[in-house]
Amino acid sequence: MKAYNVNDIRERVKNISIVGRLDFVFTNAKAIDNADEESIVWIKKITPNQLLRIQRTKAKYIVAETSISKEINLQKSKCLILSDNPKLTFLRILKAFFVEKEAYHTHHSAIIDPLAKISEHVTIGPNTYIGKSSIGSGTILHGNCYIYDHVIIGENVTISAGCVIGSAGFGYAENEDGEYESFPQLGGVQIHANVEIGANSTIDRGTLTDTIIGEGVKIDNLVHIGHNVVIGKNSIITANTTISGSVKIGEGVWIAPSASIINQIKIGDNSTIGIGSVAVKSIPMNEIWNGFPAKPVNEYLRQEKFLKKQVK
Amino acid sequence: MKAYNVNDIRERVKNISIVGRLDFVFTNAKAIDNADEESIVWIKKITPNQLLRIQRTKAKYIVAETSISKEINLQKSKCLILSDNPKLTFLRILKAFFVEKEAYHTHHSAIIDPLAKISEHVTIGPNTYIGKSSIGSGTILHGNCYIYDHVIIGENVTISAGCVIGSAGFGYAENEDGEYESFPQLGGVQIHANVEIGANSTIDRGTLTDTIIGEGVKIDNLVHIGHNVVIGKNSIITANTTISGSVKIGEGVWIAPSASIINQIKIGDNSTIGIGSVAVKSIPMNEIWNGFPAKPVNEYLRQEKFLKKQVK
Amino acid sequence: MKAYNVNDIRERVKNISIVGRLDFVFTNAKAIDNADEESIVWIKKITPNQLLRIQRTKAKYIVAETSISKEINLQKSKCLILSDNPKLTFLRILKAFFVEKEAYHTHHSAIIDPLAKISEHVTIGPNTYIGKSSIGSGTILHGNCYIYDHVIIGENVTISAGCVIGSAGFGYAENEDGEYESFPQLGGVQIHANVEIGANSTIDRGTLTDTIIGEGVKIDNLVHIGHNVVIGKNSIITANTTISGSVKIGEGVWIAPSASIINQIKIGDNSTIGIGSVAVKSIPMNEIWNGFPAKPVNEYLRQEKFLKKQVK
Repeated sequence: MKAYNVNDIRERVKNISIVGRLDFVFTNAKAIDNADEESIVWIKKITPNQLLRIQRTKAKYIVAETSISKEINLQKSKCLILSDNPKLTFLRILKAFFVEKEAYHTHHSAIIDPLAKISEHVTIGPNTYIGKSSIGSGTILHGNCYIYDHVIIGENVTISAGCVIGSAGFGYAENEDGEYESFPQLGGVQIHANVEIGANSTIDRGTLTDTIIGEGVKIDNLVHIGHNVVIGKNSIITANTTISGSVKIGEGVWIAPSASIINQIKIGDNSTIGIGSVAVKSIPMNEIWNGFPAKPVNEYLRQEKFLKKQVK
Repeated sequence: MKAYNVNDIRERVKNISIVGRLDFVFTNAKAIDNADEESIVWIKKITPNQLLRIQRTKAKYIVAETSISKEINLQKSKCLILSDNPKLTFLRILKAFFVEKEAYHTHHSAIIDPLAKISEHVTIGPNTYIGKSSIGSGTILHGNCYIYDHVIIGENVTISAGCVIGSAGFGYAENEDGEYESFPQLGGVQIHANVEIGANSTIDRGTLTDTIIGEGVKIDNLVHIGHNVVIGKNSIITANTTISGSVKIGEGVWIAPSASIINQIKIGDNSTIGIGSVAVKSIPMNEIWNGFPAKPVNEYLRQEKFLKKQVK
Repeated sequence: MKAYNVNDIRERVKNISIVGRLDFVFTNAKAIDNADEESIVWIKKITPNQLLRIQRTKAKYIVAETSISKEINLQKSKCLILSDNPKLTFLRILKAFFVEKEAYHTHHSAIIDPLAKISEHVTIGPNTYIGKSSIGSGTILHGNCYIYDHVIIGENVTISAGCVIGSAGFGYAENEDGEYESFPQLGGVQIHANVEIGANSTIDRGTLTDTIIGEGVKIDNLVHIGHNVVIGKNSIITANTTISGSVKIGEGVWIAPSASIINQIKIGDNSTIGIGSVAVKSIPMNEIWNGFPAKPVNEYLRQEKFLKKQVK
């Protein structure tokens, strides 16, 4: 195992200050409670509980908030890597020291349509299929994915195993005999740069226009995104969420796990939808909505409190 | 791009009337707001907002409800394709002019058990596996599907990528040691004609009898259908819905996204279960149920109203 | 079809008593309502309705609770296989007579990393990929699964088609530009002995430690298990459930379909979370919680009752 020291950190990671003892080495990154003497670890917030864990950990390198120096004297026993955003600092240390970048490659079992446009510097995993679609540079598709035709995937996108992108949207009209005839789905899917998509998620193609996943959007596992959905930059869609057709989601939105959003509505920029919440009308910008049906969080909490009081 | 005119429409599409100018051509179908002068477009309902969009669109061909002629004078500037069900009319125009039917084919990477019974005129996509099961004529299985043994798929069925059909149902009995022993699942799955199933959905085989998906049923993405479920003709099961074991769903039922239905209950013909609703008891015919737990929609709405009033 | 008699049952199944006529044979196992004269069937509970079904069934062999002898006289017309746990007895009869054990085998289309450690007596299905991971003896992986690196799968595990195990967990930190940078996921997944996992489920690898699925845990279809989750022995996770990151679930827990559990909380041993429930705080041992948000079942039921009364 390779050993690193405080100079290596200074060289590779920015926006930090380093205090305490400078003569330690680290060879691994671990969770604080099961670290060894060569570990680098982190704490998110300075709480009494976290300070206790620091005193108990064997790790010598600790990434923490800058203000920790006021709370506890570790100058002689630890090397403190301090910043305003220790989570970000720690993840950059992990990336700089412990993540090996694999060379781009296409697995021999991948199946690629002759009319697909695959950039250079792309990874395509085992058994992944790519139709008449295009894949941008730096993009990584893991195995067992199925990319239909009419999908445009931008640069530096990561798609985990088992995803289906570009399947026909769910649209039907009832005919004279009470049967449903399927509405042809002729649009595509655009996935912009730096998007990440979790395992077994599905994104349907648009009906006449495209389904669009904006730059930097992060999508978790088992998420359903219906036809004609548009998701703005840097929004977060967590696991098992259902986004029905034609929903417009703004930028910087956070959707908690297993939420469900009815078709056609809009979610404003920087808003949050709580876990399991069922959004049935549009949500303005900068709000937190929660509940079934989703409502502003204060209203939700007052309802909860009211009910609790009634049945005591 | 091929150009079509009003005579082509008359020839290929029924139950319509055509008014306005008859000398335009169309070469593409688009959403009304981003159409060009050679587009055919549609509007669902005649609302002030929709009429405004018609006045702004560049499209010359507009599919709409018959009554639109009373609302607005477009006789000189547009060609109106009118019917009582413009969605159905438009989808049939899309099918007639813009959907190319692919020839049936089996991808070389598909894996088919020697004992499978595959009809003529079937498409089987890349990396799809078919066990000792049968596939009816006109059926299309997209890629990365896994069809276990004991599955009977009827005619003109479409199954999107990543589906798993015929997996063992989730049944266990606790033994003397507090461990769960799995209940053998010996039934199969029947999927009747004209069923459509979305991406990454799963349908379990029955325990002793079959799981049955009735004719014309449409199932969206990421739907779970447990063992011994029976779904009647022309029902709609939208995305991320959970249908637990032995549920009986009638004909013409509509289940909105991410609903969850407890095992063993019955959903009557033509009933609707609302988005995110959790059905824990049987629902009669022709009713709309909503909420957690699902209840008749009027009761649900009165509860919502009551709570809203209390916490104002 | 092979014919069996009461002596065969005595030989292969324990903890039963047999009363009634002993000269019948059975050749198949069926549901009680569509049995024939050579069927063996079972009933779960002795209810008037079930007794009626026994009187109507053509089956001669009936598995039931011991106390049935007091309720109904079948001594001359049926062969009764009696036990305290007829479900367990019937499943063991199914296993003993009607489940053929397939020989272990690796399908030629499976893709296995040269550094994977595969025990003897393992089945690996079509198009399944296994990375630098290990698979214990007696374990069966169905087709179209994707097992990333750093996954340790124990003995006698069964994983249904389409599962993804060991994908990167969903962890991000917002950087100086409002973009999300992904937190490297360096842990693995441990799946202990006798675990069963349903179709298209996903289990993420841990961040710095492992995600752990304890011995005997049963997981249904389309379940999401986030990074660093730990699930104790013999817990049951039903379909479409979402278990967010770092949740600790005790032993013998039952999670009903489409429940959602917020990150970081603990679910105590032998507790139950009801269908569709949204758990947002830790749940003690031996409790049943239900609702949105999940609360002790009595509180939930009183709230439901209160609301029902108000809006009558």
